[in-house]
Amino acid sequence: MREDPFATLAEGYESWYETPLGAFVVAEEEKALETLLPPGEDLLEVGAGTGYWLKRLPYARKVGLEPSSAMLQLGRRKVPEATWVEGQGEALPFPEKSFDVVLLFTVLEFVEDVGKTLSEARRVLKPGGSLLVGILEALSPWAALYRRLGEKGVLPWAQARFLTREDLQDLLGPPEAEREAVFLAPEAEPPFPDADQAGLRAGNRGALYLGRWR
Amino acid sequence: MREDPFATLAEGYESWYETPLGAFVVAEEEKALETLLPPGEDLLEVGAGTGYWLKRLPYARKVGLEPSSAMLQLGRRKVPEATWVEGQGEALPFPEKSFDVVLLFTVLEFVEDVGKTLSEARRVLKPGGSLLVGILEALSPWAALYRRLGEKGVLPWAQARFLTREDLQDLLGPPEAEREAVFLAPEAEPPFPDADQAGLRAGNRGALYLGRWR
Repeated sequence: MREDPFATLAEGYESWYETPLGAFVVAEEEKALETLLPPGEDLLEVGAGTGYWLKRLPYARKVGLEPSSAMLQLGRRKVPEATWVEGQGEALPFPEKSFDVVLLFTVLEFVEDVGKTLSEARRVLKPGGSLLVGILEALSPWAALYRRLGEKGVLPWAQARFLTREDLQDLLGPPEAEREAVFLAPEAEPPFPDADQAGLRAGNRGALYLGRWR
Repeated sequence: MREDPFATLAEGYESWYETPLGAFVVAEEEKALETLLPPGEDLLEVGAGTGYWLKRLPYARKVGLEPSSAMLQLGRRKVPEATWVEGQGEALPFPEKSFDVVLLFTVLEFVEDVGKTLSEARRVLKPGGSLLVGILEALSPWAALYRRLGEKGVLPWAQARFLTREDLQDLLGPPEAEREAVFLAPEAEPPFPDADQAGLRAGNRGALYLGRWR
């Protein structure tokens, strides 16, 4: 097993969301995620981190799986209403057909085995359940920045892989629904809604690609 | 010495410039380059490729140095008015103080030793001469695409490194003049001038950064 790239990051992990740009980005991501949420009772988030999304997800029973014990400890404190489980996406400690929804939100970037993680996610889905996968689009300007930071050894990017929507569709087939968000670049100036519209016009891929599969 | 990543690319190397997007991009690059050209008689282009820029540069005596014999052969045919020399940027076969201008146009991406290439370029400059360096900005959306292609083994990107303007300034100090061009993304739709303006507004870094140093 690799070292935990998030071990030293847990404390400050959500602080970027409090910057003006970070707040815009996360609000855009939230809107995109909301439009794709399927109905259901039981949700599993694989790689739930510090629980930022888990806290906001409108499901009756929520489970957060997280391999980094530093992140999980914080998540458990922040989102006590969820059940937290330490574990890897490649080997989910749940019986098959356990959840209505499984969410992987920019998690495939960091798992050891993308294929195994996806097949495990599908294994634990109930019949008719939905798999929601968000990736940090490899062709967006944000991936250019994160690759650069990774080259400089900055965590977690030094241990990341970068996927395109086409990679995801090669792995999972065509999604039943999809969304894209965050078209502006990391050096955008406010007002950010204008910059975001401009990014779309410029041909930027959104930093976030979200797809939903059965 | 590494294998020549351009060996199989020479024939089609300029064909992208004939696509609508390619024509827009290269015209923007040419405008940026023109505004930075210093006066002088003798120009050396290091990594002159197939001579696309060498043909357009308004100097009385032009020398194109190129390590790839496939590229050089084509260049010699296309730009017979220049002197073509096979060689590496790290070991220029010229005495010191030979040229008024030395140009490296998206060449540092492919040399074995960036520092040596730059110090050689400066060695052959006449006193008061100018070094012009263009890079494919690592933080632009184009670098995201080329890194992706490189990961897939596509040449020449599989053998490229990606630099930022900050890297260049760390190596050479602050430039006496600089330009940026090509703010649109690889998937931009026409009309391209609008898309390019939008890219600037979105916070995209230009794909081309050009600096001039003494």
